[in-house]
Amino acid sequence: MNSSQGLEEIFARFPGIGPRQARRFVYYLMNKSPTFIKEFIQTINEVKKSTNECENCRRFFIEEESGLNQPSKKRQKTLCDICSDLNRDRSVLMIVTRESDFESVEKSGAYKGLYFILGGTVPILDKEPEKRIRLRALLDRISNDSGLNEIILSLNTTPDGEHTMTIVKEAIEKLARPKRIKISVLGRGLSTGAELEYADSDTIRNALKNRQ
Amino acid sequence: MNSSQGLEEIFARFPGIGPRQARRFVYYLMNKSPTFIKEFIQTINEVKKSTNECENCRRFFIEEESGLNQPSKKRQKTLCDICSDLNRDRSVLMIVTRESDFESVEKSGAYKGLYFILGGTVPILDKEPEKRIRLRALLDRISNDSGLNEIILSLNTTPDGEHTMTIVKEAIEKLARPKRIKISVLGRGLSTGAELEYADSDTIRNALKNRQ
Amino acid sequence: MNSSQGLEEIFARFPGIGPRQARRFVYYLMNKSPTFIKEFIQTINEVKKSTNECENCRRFFIEEESGLNQPSKKRQKTLCDICSDLNRDRSVLMIVTRESDFESVEKSGAYKGLYFILGGTVPILDKEPEKRIRLRALLDRISNDSGLNEIILSLNTTPDGEHTMTIVKEAIEKLARPKRIKISVLGRGLSTGAELEYADSDTIRNALKNRQ
Amino acid sequence: MNSSQGLEEIFARFPGIGPRQARRFVYYLMNKSPTFIKEFIQTINEVKKSTNECENCRRFFIEEESGLNQPSKKRQKTLCDICSDLNRDRSVLMIVTRESDFESVEKSGAYKGLYFILGGTVPILDKEPEKRIRLRALLDRISNDSGLNEIILSLNTTPDGEHTMTIVKEAIEKLARPKRIKISVLGRGLSTGAELEYADSDTIRNALKNRQ
Repeated sequence: MNSSQGLEEIFARFPGIGPRQARRFVYYLMNKSPTFIKEFIQTINEVKKSTNECENCRRFFIEEESGLNQPSKKRQKTLCDICSDLNRDRSVLMIVTRESDFESVEKSGAYKGLYFILGGTVPILDKEPEKRIRLRALLDRISNDSGLNEIILSLNTTPDGEHTMTIVKEAIEKLARPKRIKISVLGRGLSTGAELEYADSDTIRNALKNRQ
Repeated sequence: MNSSQGLEEIFARFPGIGPRQARRFVYYLMNKSPTFIKEFIQTINEVKKSTNECENCRRFFIEEESGLNQPSKKRQKTLCDICSDLNRDRSVLMIVTRESDFESVEKSGAYKGLYFILGGTVPILDKEPEKRIRLRALLDRISNDSGLNEIILSLNTTPDGEHTMTIVKEAIEKLARPKRIKISVLGRGLSTGAELEYADSDTIRNALKNRQ
Repeated sequence: MNSSQGLEEIFARFPGIGPRQARRFVYYLMNKSPTFIKEFIQTINEVKKSTNECENCRRFFIEEESGLNQPSKKRQKTLCDICSDLNRDRSVLMIVTRESDFESVEKSGAYKGLYFILGGTVPILDKEPEKRIRLRALLDRISNDSGLNEIILSLNTTPDGEHTMTIVKEAIEKLARPKRIKISVLGRGLSTGAELEYADSDTIRNALKNRQ
Repeated sequence: MNSSQGLEEIFARFPGIGPRQARRFVYYLMNKSPTFIKEFIQTINEVKKSTNECENCRRFFIEEESGLNQPSKKRQKTLCDICSDLNRDRSVLMIVTRESDFESVEKSGAYKGLYFILGGTVPILDKEPEKRIRLRALLDRISNDSGLNEIILSLNTTPDGEHTMTIVKEAIEKLARPKRIKISVLGRGLSTGAELEYADSDTIRNALKNRQ
């Protein structure tokens, strides 16, 4: 395997990219000037260098540039801007799958509490959930927090998402009960723009049960 | 305009049919044998002859064939099988847009009450909602029923559906309040198979508000 | 099976219509006024009454309304407007699958000869091509015409279309050779708007072979 | 703009990538281990280091790894494997837009001549075609080759492709005529799987003109 095939294989593992588009990416880079490639690599390195994982929510985030000039301070900063924002409601913790879900929720402006990023989903039949999601870190996060009133499970309602929900729920219930932390899940029902004629029976059942 | 253009125009008003497919329908029929056409027309006539509009829910339904042989009985039958089924919960009334929505809800098996078919939606900016939906008949239906506890608005969550919901809600509230009938709407939230990353802000807001 | 199911099944055989849309058509008609249904059926009957099959090209066409008032003339008219147009080039015959293909070619304005409508395609593995296409009538058409110079096979380049082409070509070659009629097929190559990157190997091969 | 926004912008310029997917790429890399990032960057560098532009066809290609250990040889190798393959027909030159088009044609197995990669297309209304395509290099390529019999223009049949074709054709005709080099374009007509009913008039016209 030569280097272009190697690069093609790496691109093919990028989210949503098939072998054909991976190949086009390789050609795209082959046609680019050395200056472009240098800048591309430099930017990747910069992103990686300024990426921190928040100790609290496990979210990967980019540190402000000011921090880059103060290496002594940098060492200390391990909380993202949400986790260190004193105006957020620290009594509610929302568990989401990935950074992109976190972004969707933030964009809605409807949530003011804290987050925890699971980092993935557990496929049905998977034997080792701990390798897929940050279950251990989540349990530590809940154990060490004495101020939690509610944990909101905000996972996808896909089969894998539902399976992950069951695993996470079971694992945190033992910790949550003695601490009287309420565990809730996002409401199910009709999404915006839904047409009843095309809604599946499960969604209708949920929409009916959750009618208001 | 000759007859084939006339037929093309009629087919083009069928749900989901554009001019191109309407034209194909005309050619399809032109190619068919007289026997087929005769059977086609006969079946349309039979459907129309045995179609009744339920006095109660305004649903169009096909009468059982046994009824066709008993013309004296036929006259009297004006209730569909749901409205005449004594096992249905007669204290709940669900308002749906069309027969196809009614079918979706029935298929889910989650609802055991009665229905009312609005017959359409009111487009935003439309000046005469009475011409689009059976508002007068709905108000009569509610007025004449002394046993109702709840009315469920099961309309699409599209802009037109939401607009229709507002009109219907406003109209029935005056009747419902003195009779202590609860008015509810289908729950909003994540539908089955939803991915948070691609959910719109409205849906996330509703799912969060309706969390359980 | 009641009448509405019967009608649903008929609609489900209309071109491009699945069971779900067939059901919506039935509901659509059930909701329509008797006046509409009467007009619908009347138009179908009119179309059928004024539909003639051209003796020459086997195309189904609508006779001009003037003809309807002259029943004596009507009997005699068995040629469509193309076949009876003396300005068309009568030395070229194009074989197409259906009326809709004929319309496409006419719309292009690129062809001035006559047509023959095969009436269908022969699926691969089908044992009785005579039941699918008007092969007998085509052979008669060619035999009885002493002025033909060329026959153009204008069939779809789909697998079934190619299979039909082989059957038709073989059948007409025996007739065409002694009469020195040239048999041609539509040119293969890049269609308008084609991108080489996404073109299949067959199309590239043909485009290369037919380069000009 | 911080580094992650910078990287997002770079990815958004990759072929077929919109801002949303570009953002997902950035998150994907942020979540990846330093080892992965190191390997990713190293592979990009390797690809770039072993990428050569063929002096003859202007195609970017990866040099065989053996070449990497022989720097003295490396300097000399400036021809790709097609241009240096003595079994290819050196009397025919095919002009294609990009490497991906070259790959499509090679995959078809229908062409055994040489290539020239234009490197892009000239959008309609663009004032400086020389900045979009390698017109100068193409003219040099043709001037310096005394053995050419035919030049095949294999460009997309999209509006931009047609416009580029006109520009290239005009530019090379002056060189080709005195040398008696034939200029041809790929055949136009029905592509594989085409249905006449849905074919545009232009394609039907071409298919008819190029019938065989």
